[in-house]
Amino acid sequence: MRFSISANDGAARTGLLHLRHGSVATPAFMPVGTLGSVKTVSPIEVRASGAQILLGNTFHLMLRPGPDVIRAHGNLNRFMDWDRPILTDSGGFQVWSLANSRDVEEAGVTFRSPIDGSSIFLGPEESISMQSVLDSDIAMVFDECTAYPVSRDKAGASMERSMRWARRCRDAHNNAGQCLFGIVQGGMHVDLREISLQSLVDIGFDGYAIGGLSVGEPKDLMLSIVESITPQMPVKCPRYLMGVGKPEDLVRGVMVGIDMFDCVIPTRNARNGWLYTRSGIVKIRNSKYRMDLRPIDDSCVCLTCERFSRAYLRHLVTSNEMLGLRLCTVHNLHYFQRLMADMREAIQKMKFSAFVQEFFDSPTHR
Amino acid sequence: MRFSISANDGAARTGLLHLRHGSVATPAFMPVGTLGSVKTVSPIEVRASGAQILLGNTFHLMLRPGPDVIRAHGNLNRFMDWDRPILTDSGGFQVWSLANSRDVEEAGVTFRSPIDGSSIFLGPEESISMQSVLDSDIAMVFDECTAYPVSRDKAGASMERSMRWARRCRDAHNNAGQCLFGIVQGGMHVDLREISLQSLVDIGFDGYAIGGLSVGEPKDLMLSIVESITPQMPVKCPRYLMGVGKPEDLVRGVMVGIDMFDCVIPTRNARNGWLYTRSGIVKIRNSKYRMDLRPIDDSCVCLTCERFSRAYLRHLVTSNEMLGLRLCTVHNLHYFQRLMADMREAIQKMKFSAFVQEFFDSPTHR
Repeated sequence: MRFSISANDGAARTGLLHLRHGSVATPAFMPVGTLGSVKTVSPIEVRASGAQILLGNTFHLMLRPGPDVIRAHGNLNRFMDWDRPILTDSGGFQVWSLANSRDVEEAGVTFRSPIDGSSIFLGPEESISMQSVLDSDIAMVFDECTAYPVSRDKAGASMERSMRWARRCRDAHNNAGQCLFGIVQGGMHVDLREISLQSLVDIGFDGYAIGGLSVGEPKDLMLSIVESITPQMPVKCPRYLMGVGKPEDLVRGVMVGIDMFDCVIPTRNARNGWLYTRSGIVKIRNSKYRMDLRPIDDSCVCLTCERFSRAYLRHLVTSNEMLGLRLCTVHNLHYFQRLMADMREAIQKMKFSAFVQEFFDSPTHR
Repeated sequence: MRFSISANDGAARTGLLHLRHGSVATPAFMPVGTLGSVKTVSPIEVRASGAQILLGNTFHLMLRPGPDVIRAHGNLNRFMDWDRPILTDSGGFQVWSLANSRDVEEAGVTFRSPIDGSSIFLGPEESISMQSVLDSDIAMVFDECTAYPVSRDKAGASMERSMRWARRCRDAHNNAGQCLFGIVQGGMHVDLREISLQSLVDIGFDGYAIGGLSVGEPKDLMLSIVESITPQMPVKCPRYLMGVGKPEDLVRGVMVGIDMFDCVIPTRNARNGWLYTRSGIVKIRNSKYRMDLRPIDDSCVCLTCERFSRAYLRHLVTSNEMLGLRLCTVHNLHYFQRLMADMREAIQKMKFSAFVQEFFDSPTHR
């Protein structure tokens, strides 16, 4: 892996992250391909949106279809016909948020499968092994996510365990072409976050992520953690803010120097009929769009906006036609990728402050 | 409309049906675009399957989105971004099969909307008017479908009413660029079917359809009606067997001189994970496909077979990922269109008997 930063504008930066399956322009937004597909769309449509890297969920893919099926195909890329880079999460967050009867010990986590109730063990070594089967370009360390709210003592103890697990992940990792990123934990305590970051830097990773946010805390608290810790992260390594977020969160993240994001918001909101535009969110189910012949966003060049009216999309979505969810997803993915491309261009031209000003002055974010 | 037959091989024939939005090679299979989309796929994918004409449902589109929305877009083609020919059914069959509290009188049918329970009236003039709003290339007369089983008297009375309605449709029709097809009724009684056909020919239509089949009767009875009535239909006009069918039904229909078919089987079965291949149906949910790296059908050149394994499709379908239903639909649509193309080629080469022999000798149809 090589990470070359081509321009800095304030704390914001733009560059290229060179990975095994190709280069990724940063700041980058990764669509989430939970179960080996970005929900409702094909790899061709993900590519057409401008996405250069996507995220795969180790937890979900471990349960379905299971490592043997992925291994038989060679890797996750070939299984799902995606020829660009993939980042896999470690499963830590999903074990914490989705699994039943969780039993966390120093060795790892035993939980009941939400699919068939069977007992499954996932620890640092198992996560690294599964991510090696998926053979992603970037693997993440297996960590424990801290709930919100939680006492300082508990947050500290959990963070320290995550750091011991990070060391075990580093030691277990032996996939030469695959990068490994550490994850900063420590709940809402900046001093714990700083200790966590230093521990990770001491171990040494290819990149560093901020985890354990967007877990129910107020938005301002989340942003204050990001604003405090990001400037302390190694300047020459990619910085990844996990599970974030809305367009305004992406802009705020880039402002303080974040390089990578992932979130289900564009795809999940699309399936709820919430469509992003430069002039605000279009809730396509609304009856006011019944006869609206305009595209979702007349400045958008996605397939959906080029060929279909709001009235047609509203008809499909209210009639529960699957094509509607897909066309909405195509648009939202395109919106998020264009936002990232616009930010990269603004940073390159040293006009990011003006971009931010204009962005937050727009009707969407007033 | 112009219908030019380029070859006859026995009773089977192949030719070109020239319509407002383009030419259709016959025998043709029309995918069903119920609500302004062929379920799960985009117009681009329908086109790529080889389909040259699709069917739109007047009944469904009248209820949702309603005629005013279609009219605002110009026509159904522009509403759904399909630039090739469309045939619309009249709504007669859906009123009969889907509507609640049906009250059939000489004027037409009053029924409760399955969407919101409101009272709606649909008669011959209303159907023709709605089909003119949809502005399809081919409109169908509004008819009454006869149940199975039913007494000869009832079948006769129902057929006679359908013929009076056919006359009213002909009189009401005033869309110059749109063809109008009559529909032969008469239940399972060949003599009633013959009377019906003569009535339609006396009125004069651009093409003739066989309706009221596939309503619960044994398959052999259905085929015997088709085999009896088709040879009596005007030789120079397109002959359309409505709502049929499985691949073997299409072959049997072409054998006796049918030119057009429509059916939800390829799309509905795809959404159930039943995939057509030359060597039989692949039920993709079956656990035996869990590790199967082969495409659905290695002789198929559809997008699905070119890029994805059975194991991947099984994973998507069993995980309820929408992409799976779409990839299955792409394949089945392609299979049906290839079957039609193969039949057209065999007829053109005067080798249709050999084609039929080989088809029914294959594992699928033994």
